Amino acid sequence: MSAFLHYQTNRPGTVFEYLSGIPGLEDSGLVVPADSEPVLVSKEFEEARARTGRITDVRPATTIPISKAMGVLGEVLREKGLSGRKVGVDETELTLEVYLWLRKLGVEPVPFSGVIRELRARKTAEELVHMREAVRLAALAVRKVEALAGEGLTEAELAAEAGFIMERNGGEKSFVGVQFGPNAALPHWRPSGTSVLGSGLLVVDLGARVFGYNSDLTRTFRVGEPSIQEEKMLRITREAVLSAVSEVAPGTSLSRAAACARRVIREAGLPEPKHRIGHGVGLSVHEHPVVEEGFDTVAEEGMVFTLEPGIYIDGKAGCRIEVEVLVKGSGTEVLDRELEL
Amino acid sequence: MSAFLHYQTNRPGTVFEYLSGIPGLEDSGLVVPADSEPVLVSKEFEEARARTGRITDVRPATTIPISKAMGVLGEVLREKGLSGRKVGVDETELTLEVYLWLRKLGVEPVPFSGVIRELRARKTAEELVHMREAVRLAALAVRKVEALAGEGLTEAELAAEAGFIMERNGGEKSFVGVQFGPNAALPHWRPSGTSVLGSGLLVVDLGARVFGYNSDLTRTFRVGEPSIQEEKMLRITREAVLSAVSEVAPGTSLSRAAACARRVIREAGLPEPKHRIGHGVGLSVHEHPVVEEGFDTVAEEGMVFTLEPGIYIDGKAGCRIEVEVLVKGSGTEVLDRELEL
Repeated sequence: MSAFLHYQTNRPGTVFEYLSGIPGLEDSGLVVPADSEPVLVSKEFEEARARTGRITDVRPATTIPISKAMGVLGEVLREKGLSGRKVGVDETELTLEVYLWLRKLGVEPVPFSGVIRELRARKTAEELVHMREAVRLAALAVRKVEALAGEGLTEAELAAEAGFIMERNGGEKSFVGVQFGPNAALPHWRPSGTSVLGSGLLVVDLGARVFGYNSDLTRTFRVGEPSIQEEKMLRITREAVLSAVSEVAPGTSLSRAAACARRVIREAGLPEPKHRIGHGVGLSVHEHPVVEEGFDTVAEEGMVFTLEPGIYIDGKAGCRIEVEVLVKGSGTEVLDRELEL
Repeated sequence: MSAFLHYQTNRPGTVFEYLSGIPGLEDSGLVVPADSEPVLVSKEFEEARARTGRITDVRPATTIPISKAMGVLGEVLREKGLSGRKVGVDETELTLEVYLWLRKLGVEPVPFSGVIRELRARKTAEELVHMREAVRLAALAVRKVEALAGEGLTEAELAAEAGFIMERNGGEKSFVGVQFGPNAALPHWRPSGTSVLGSGLLVVDLGARVFGYNSDLTRTFRVGEPSIQEEKMLRITREAVLSAVSEVAPGTSLSRAAACARRVIREAGLPEPKHRIGHGVGLSVHEHPVVEEGFDTVAEEGMVFTLEPGIYIDGKAGCRIEVEVLVKGSGTEVLDRELEL
């Protein structure tokens, strides 16, 4: 591979951000040659922002229509001697439109996301600073929802309060889910006009974003006087997440942690979740590694992933607890350990 | 073309939403045959959400790894008799990864975004209901920032307040920019820790999202006692936006509106903006049409686009006013007309 190359249009992704250090820059691309300095091609009027990242060779371009930006990219490719060569691309984010342009520009794009994915899974010390701050802000928001639950606000109103806390404290809201009672039986359902009043379980699943890095935490709270069944769901979910955490260590297979959480739920006679037990988190809310049976990724130092067993009874209730685990040389650290389970 | 086809992974886009009516559904795809019922392939555990849209034939699938979802998609293609046929795709959102899978599944993907883009540019009555609500929420947020300006909050704190107002009133924050004084000379710069105190111009550029539909409004406010130069910038920007609005009518070229705004700024001896004068808005904040000299799109009934002339003096100040215009059979309507310029 003689270079890595990416270009994003009006839907900024994570690859550009990972390599350039600049979040959310529309109509921008980069060329990272194996043996010379990287080049960033940016929208002309955002040149100042394009210069805030780690790439110093910035080429401003007219980017609409895309043909003009591709003209500038083509010049860079010729200058770097990449014409006719294979260049790595992240096929999970590169659009077909840009792929067809790259072919026209005379390079041969080769899927390369696997390598990027592995690099991204192990967070650097600098990335962990942002990740920890994103966890701190999410924990503030979870506590805020807990404090307001049962006062009669709707799921959507509680979600707005959660988002505000994260933004008022210097982060961005990444996403907020607030689901009460039967609504919580459907994971990922959006916050609704349902008032959080009476008795039941309240599932709060949210994340902040700091310098592009996301957190992703879930807690389930008791509102009023939950039923015996709901109390059991909560107790078993706690056991499941704790047993999964205890299985993680550098060098172990993550499928074991998932199997462990599932076993606890199954042996309690409750239904296992249809969703994955966990996933990597970083510039994407969901990224490598997958934590699930059948996926044999090995825990490596620097990896950050969620463990989030849940129990769902259609039409009745839902329950989920999600922690973020950092794998260290010496063991693991639950990043959100200050928030009770 | 025998069908249109799309699949999105962990970065939901706008095409899937446009055709299915469901915002933000990860790991989902659809097949829209020319001569039979459309099919939606969805993540198994989000089947309930997948059934909230306008496609009734929903096929739940294991979606991670993607090979399993592609297996289900392949079955649908065979069932619909699409093997070996040309299928339209939106090349601006389809990733290279999915493109390579489609080739493997035996169909021939053909770029088709131009058609989708034209359809999307003309909003239906149903879409306009969401668009109007998104404008209403954004206007509330602009007023909130205006009311709090000069009380000593930072740009980032004001941005958090703006986001909260939109979410607390039933929408989602789409984006919020708050820039004061010299910071406003750099359009799209992110809200900072700068306190909005003293004298200068405050640029508030924000949007709400309702059912996936975005608004995008900008107003510039006077804080304290702006300089004579700043007062002139504000006055000329107002003239520029009004003159652009007055140029729009069904059947006119949008480049004329842009030229008009630019002429007002140029003739006042001030620098023209490097960014476009306007852009379509809808499921994407920036979509077709482009409103700029050299782009000869004709205003058609149902189009909604921004007109947003700005004046920027490096290191000193910035000023921008952005309205949203709906083209009607009888003329135009400024959707945010209740907010003063």
